[in-house]
Amino acid sequence: MEKQTQEELNKIKEKLDGLLEKWIGFNQYDANLLSKIKLVKWEKGSVVYSMNVDPELCNMFGTLHGGAQATLVDVLGSMAIFSLDPTPNTIVPSVSVEISVNYASSAPRDSTVYIHSNCYKQGKNLVFTETTIKNDKDEVVCKGSHTKFVLKSKM
Amino acid sequence: MEKQTQEELNKIKEKLDGLLEKWIGFNQYDANLLSKIKLVKWEKGSVVYSMNVDPELCNMFGTLHGGAQATLVDVLGSMAIFSLDPTPNTIVPSVSVEISVNYASSAPRDSTVYIHSNCYKQGKNLVFTETTIKNDKDEVVCKGSHTKFVLKSKM
Amino acid sequence: MEKQTQEELNKIKEKLDGLLEKWIGFNQYDANLLSKIKLVKWEKGSVVYSMNVDPELCNMFGTLHGGAQATLVDVLGSMAIFSLDPTPNTIVPSVSVEISVNYASSAPRDSTVYIHSNCYKQGKNLVFTETTIKNDKDEVVCKGSHTKFVLKSKM
Amino acid sequence: MEKQTQEELNKIKEKLDGLLEKWIGFNQYDANLLSKIKLVKWEKGSVVYSMNVDPELCNMFGTLHGGAQATLVDVLGSMAIFSLDPTPNTIVPSVSVEISVNYASSAPRDSTVYIHSNCYKQGKNLVFTETTIKNDKDEVVCKGSHTKFVLKSKM
Repeated sequence: MEKQTQEELNKIKEKLDGLLEKWIGFNQYDANLLSKIKLVKWEKGSVVYSMNVDPELCNMFGTLHGGAQATLVDVLGSMAIFSLDPTPNTIVPSVSVEISVNYASSAPRDSTVYIHSNCYKQGKNLVFTETTIKNDKDEVVCKGSHTKFVLKSKM
Repeated sequence: MEKQTQEELNKIKEKLDGLLEKWIGFNQYDANLLSKIKLVKWEKGSVVYSMNVDPELCNMFGTLHGGAQATLVDVLGSMAIFSLDPTPNTIVPSVSVEISVNYASSAPRDSTVYIHSNCYKQGKNLVFTETTIKNDKDEVVCKGSHTKFVLKSKM
Repeated sequence: MEKQTQEELNKIKEKLDGLLEKWIGFNQYDANLLSKIKLVKWEKGSVVYSMNVDPELCNMFGTLHGGAQATLVDVLGSMAIFSLDPTPNTIVPSVSVEISVNYASSAPRDSTVYIHSNCYKQGKNLVFTETTIKNDKDEVVCKGSHTKFVLKSKM
Repeated sequence: MEKQTQEELNKIKEKLDGLLEKWIGFNQYDANLLSKIKLVKWEKGSVVYSMNVDPELCNMFGTLHGGAQATLVDVLGSMAIFSLDPTPNTIVPSVSVEISVNYASSAPRDSTVYIHSNCYKQGKNLVFTETTIKNDKDEVVCKGSHTKFVLKSKM
């Protein structure tokens, strides 16, 4: 991938932070998760967010719930897609075709996880993303894929 | 699958409803979803829950969020496993190996969906479930799989 | 799904058998597998093929190879799609978006398996299929999904 | 991952090449594919093979068959696992739990592809691998996962 200028990188961050804030305001299913994540690294097509594993994100084993991990694969895959175009506020609307997640290790309550999402193919109709959640020892918690179908009109 | 007596079926329902209530009380990641589902059909290894698509379960298109669907595939797959053994309150603890979901149609806000989960293979180490979410026209909203690894001690 | 007349069912069988023969003739990656399967049950959108687990389809454990199972999920998912329209020889061309397979049991060499494929959603752009391979005791060997993207021109 | 000495790397290559030759000799489902791949890069837990897209590996569009790609995700994920332990000829036997593949681009007949497989988690019971097939322009053809369950006795 070609190098971006610092100005472009700043625009990507501004856009992603703006979308995040807007979505938290929508107060929908992902609002609680979105309110906990923080962009720590980014470039065109690729983002890393950090998140604290708060107790209300856990399962009965006291570790990050598999459904929360799947929702992160869903939402942050979309963020990776939006990072491809730094134009403020525009998004190419798309719908989910599939999500899959492989659970390799658990992330205990109150630990920090890092969610790496990457858009590795942006076709005219289909967009492909992959997401890896790692714990603070850089071990893989899960790896997931999220494939989306592009709707035609820009939003 | 062999037929169950009405008494066995009653015990399965009692067990599942008891687990549901207990888990809602844990107030963890799935509590909000769990508080919205209602067991409408069940037998050994197979459950159907109904759910209203409340606004707080939606995405920005006003339809059931893909992450909520994945969480239902996760949690109700586990319920299908627990329905295999009607003994009250006991569960064989297990952890997720993978979840995958294919999104076929959307389920609009305020509609009713039916979540069908089925455990089609219970091995010594691995348990396999499949889940189909349907809308009220009996169309498939999504189909998903949830595979779990069995931990040895009963809870 | 609405009932089909016997005449329609005959046309579907004729079409599927014709496509199978044609493809075996192409002598491509799936030719060997295709030459071993036999249509035993069918309706609009749904097919069942039987197959003998010949030694050359096995892995080093002497059971049906996971790659052969994945290829069956691929190819027979497409057959289920083609069974939707009984018009002879026409197919709506489409390309694979994803395939996933969960391996529940093994199918030993020289046993018979039954491959059930079903197209549960035919959208304008995306088509969704599910496939279950069962052994001769009606146990699940694997369950898989195959999602395809529809190309516009008919072939 | 810690650096390996040149001697260790040589032992890994010798082991993998030996297993490949042995398996081709078994003449089973994957023998044809295995006879076409060549190890071009490797370290502990990670391998890259190159392969020419021969006509008999293609589909009716003249590109690498989705079933062949899934079989590569299966087999080379196992090779990545075997590369973890350089001891000659020993393998920890394991069986497939799931395979999933996302198809991003096609690889035309007679082009060269590079298959990158990586074992990112080796647990006591479960082993997780990911595989990316790239074309000669370094674009992603597909990304897949292969999860295996470890059988206890060494072979």
